[in-house]
Amino acid sequence: MVRLNNDEADRFHLHLHDLLLNHYDLFRNEFLVLHPTDKAEFFSTLKQQERQIFYRTLTSEEMAEVFQGLDILDQKNMLIDLDQRYASEILNHLYADDAADFLAELDDTEALTLLKTMNLDDAKDVKELMAYPPKTAGAIMTKEFISLTSTHTAQEVIEQLRMEGPEAETIYYLYVVNQADQLVGVVSLRDLITAQSNELVENLMSQRVVSVDSSTNQEEVAQIIKKYDFLAAPVINSDGILVGIVTVDDIIDVLEDEATEDLGDFTAARGATDIHVSSFKAAQLRAPWIVLLMFFGLITAGVIDQFEETLSQIVLLAAFIPLLMGSAGNAGTQSLAVVVRGLALGTLEKKGLVRTLLREFQTGMMIGIICALALLLIIPIFYKSWILAIIVGISIFCSLSVATVIGAIVPLIINKLKLDPAFASGPFITTVNDILGLLIYFTIATSLLEFL
Amino acid sequence: MVRLNNDEADRFHLHLHDLLLNHYDLFRNEFLVLHPTDKAEFFSTLKQQERQIFYRTLTSEEMAEVFQGLDILDQKNMLIDLDQRYASEILNHLYADDAADFLAELDDTEALTLLKTMNLDDAKDVKELMAYPPKTAGAIMTKEFISLTSTHTAQEVIEQLRMEGPEAETIYYLYVVNQADQLVGVVSLRDLITAQSNELVENLMSQRVVSVDSSTNQEEVAQIIKKYDFLAAPVINSDGILVGIVTVDDIIDVLEDEATEDLGDFTAARGATDIHVSSFKAAQLRAPWIVLLMFFGLITAGVIDQFEETLSQIVLLAAFIPLLMGSAGNAGTQSLAVVVRGLALGTLEKKGLVRTLLREFQTGMMIGIICALALLLIIPIFYKSWILAIIVGISIFCSLSVATVIGAIVPLIINKLKLDPAFASGPFITTVNDILGLLIYFTIATSLLEFL
Repeated sequence: MVRLNNDEADRFHLHLHDLLLNHYDLFRNEFLVLHPTDKAEFFSTLKQQERQIFYRTLTSEEMAEVFQGLDILDQKNMLIDLDQRYASEILNHLYADDAADFLAELDDTEALTLLKTMNLDDAKDVKELMAYPPKTAGAIMTKEFISLTSTHTAQEVIEQLRMEGPEAETIYYLYVVNQADQLVGVVSLRDLITAQSNELVENLMSQRVVSVDSSTNQEEVAQIIKKYDFLAAPVINSDGILVGIVTVDDIIDVLEDEATEDLGDFTAARGATDIHVSSFKAAQLRAPWIVLLMFFGLITAGVIDQFEETLSQIVLLAAFIPLLMGSAGNAGTQSLAVVVRGLALGTLEKKGLVRTLLREFQTGMMIGIICALALLLIIPIFYKSWILAIIVGISIFCSLSVATVIGAIVPLIINKLKLDPAFASGPFITTVNDILGLLIYFTIATSLLEFL
Repeated sequence: MVRLNNDEADRFHLHLHDLLLNHYDLFRNEFLVLHPTDKAEFFSTLKQQERQIFYRTLTSEEMAEVFQGLDILDQKNMLIDLDQRYASEILNHLYADDAADFLAELDDTEALTLLKTMNLDDAKDVKELMAYPPKTAGAIMTKEFISLTSTHTAQEVIEQLRMEGPEAETIYYLYVVNQADQLVGVVSLRDLITAQSNELVENLMSQRVVSVDSSTNQEEVAQIIKKYDFLAAPVINSDGILVGIVTVDDIIDVLEDEATEDLGDFTAARGATDIHVSSFKAAQLRAPWIVLLMFFGLITAGVIDQFEETLSQIVLLAAFIPLLMGSAGNAGTQSLAVVVRGLALGTLEKKGLVRTLLREFQTGMMIGIICALALLLIIPIFYKSWILAIIVGISIFCSLSVATVIGAIVPLIINKLKLDPAFASGPFITTVNDILGLLIYFTIATSLLEFL
């Protein structure tokens, strides 16, 4: 059966609802073969009363699979519905990383109460994961991996997988450790399957294992998995001991998270893009950026103030301030986007920095000429002033040429200096371009007015 | 061996260089065990002369593995170095999707010449892939997948994998087809391994296969793979026939590509963020956005023009235009970032649209009060004018409150209407906020001046 469209999915959910309420066995038959994601999706369509019936229909192990697919709000709701014994059984059946993620979202006393009711072994893994700093390999890794020693044969390992397989998060990479539990090699299930059955793991494994340290930042882990097209990466501690693995599905979430976070950086909303905080909290997080940038805005006010005399001669000059600043700002952030993308995809290095800057400068000049020509045609028609058209035209040409270079050079410098790229975010570049643009505009206006 | 840091990697490359020039056999031993990504990385450190030696050291099959890890510029360079027979042998050994990606970057006559020299079978697959529109499932899928019929036992399939495995891009998902080659099920290698060896595929496979159509947009494919934590997704044509698979490593590249493309949308550089085009081409791609937004800027000029009389009474009003517009613009794009992130991560739905807008409005008001208070303190000091401070203060409060709502509502509307989110990009929202902000500013200024 292929993927359902929305209508079909709705009809299927209705059908399952009906079975749940009236045909216990049939419901279990149809529900349990669903993909965990679809199970979770169905659960979130249930009303309070139906959920109570649902809980009685599934075992705690089956519920655990539903639970791990839910988002944090639905997870909390489910927990409120259930008695503590059943809840802790569900936690026992979760992968340690899913349990740790969930408990980290609860307040400390709640989390501790639940941890105490869990199996000792499972709780130990969960506690270990919760102890790693957020956004590190340690925090996002899972403890359910398969490790083995190098003296087994391919056939023996496959037999072992038959037993242990269902517990592990992935069985496609098998990690080889020495007697001190230190990571010494990796063998893929693919290599095992295609090997002779009596071949030793020793001869099949790759000794050049790419691993990450448990303290490695999650974005770096993502870049390594992306670079090598891995399905998982092993995580070691400072003694070289294998402590967990990070799987590719977690990495996709990391990449999505980081990409939308980058959007926040880009828009002066750094660290303040969470939708689930109160407006007061949101204001607290976002106001510093707005206020900081407003103070930069005071510099632009000061620049204009210096040219008050020019401005009082042609008040209409003020009318084109937004147009000039807007265009320079847009051209600058275009260059920024080009360079940031080039840096992210690694395509920029090949191009060379000087050539990139030169290209941006030329691009800015060409766009500037087009804009200048358009304004030289339009302004005289609407404002009956050639001198205004010439001032605005020359200014837009100059400021666009400068703006593209500023937009490109700032992220390049920041990248070279290995500083936080947040400093290169759009609003800062726009502010710099505003100040330069206004200086260009009023200097040109003042000079031209003198010649009249 | 764990991951090398930069110094170690440099030393290792030097060591390999040395082996390449002096010890043919030792070089092959050390080089061939490297990960394909590392092989490609080493290749790109070679100078022209060394490359010639390198080519003679490896077979065309071994070269193919290096080739697929290179970026397009290095691939083209390698092709120039090699004679055509050797080059087409490399292409034969590539996965069809890698070969198609490469040929798509060449000009048509070059691509055709190479296609003609390839094996007929391989060339057929490559031509098929090249015929799909770019950025669809068909264009990014690979033809090297494993399909089987449902009447085999687990053991038979594992035996089959031993033979076919090395050819396929992934052996971890096995797709089950009927006699008409239509996709009817999927079985994971994990399920096969953990099953009884005489169990039939029929009983092991899942019949609820999530598949995508060959014309499905690559971003949608990525979202499906992400949603279900898949390692690959099967691609079917309009007759339900299995034609290829998209693997998770390709999807990671898609997500990275789309994320940086979103950055372009966000910054009025839509479709114009390629670093490898000439400045003339870049100007051609980017100028339309700048010019379009400049025409919107003419509206702001018109607004200010309407208030020329007010402006000539207090010329200094002009000095605060950039500050007001900048602050409203930043507050608006903050809200935009919050909502776009919320939509992308799926966290917004739960929150409710009205509550989200209300929250943004409240946040805007709070930030507005802070900014207004700051300006009420600062402006009288620097500009000795209480009336100016009051005008600017009230204006910033009003325009920030409006700007956050605009920033949030536009992407929400666009999302509801299922329109292209590019219309919600930062510059457009900023332009709307500019116009509203100026209207607020000059209306307040005009009213207050009347009362004096």
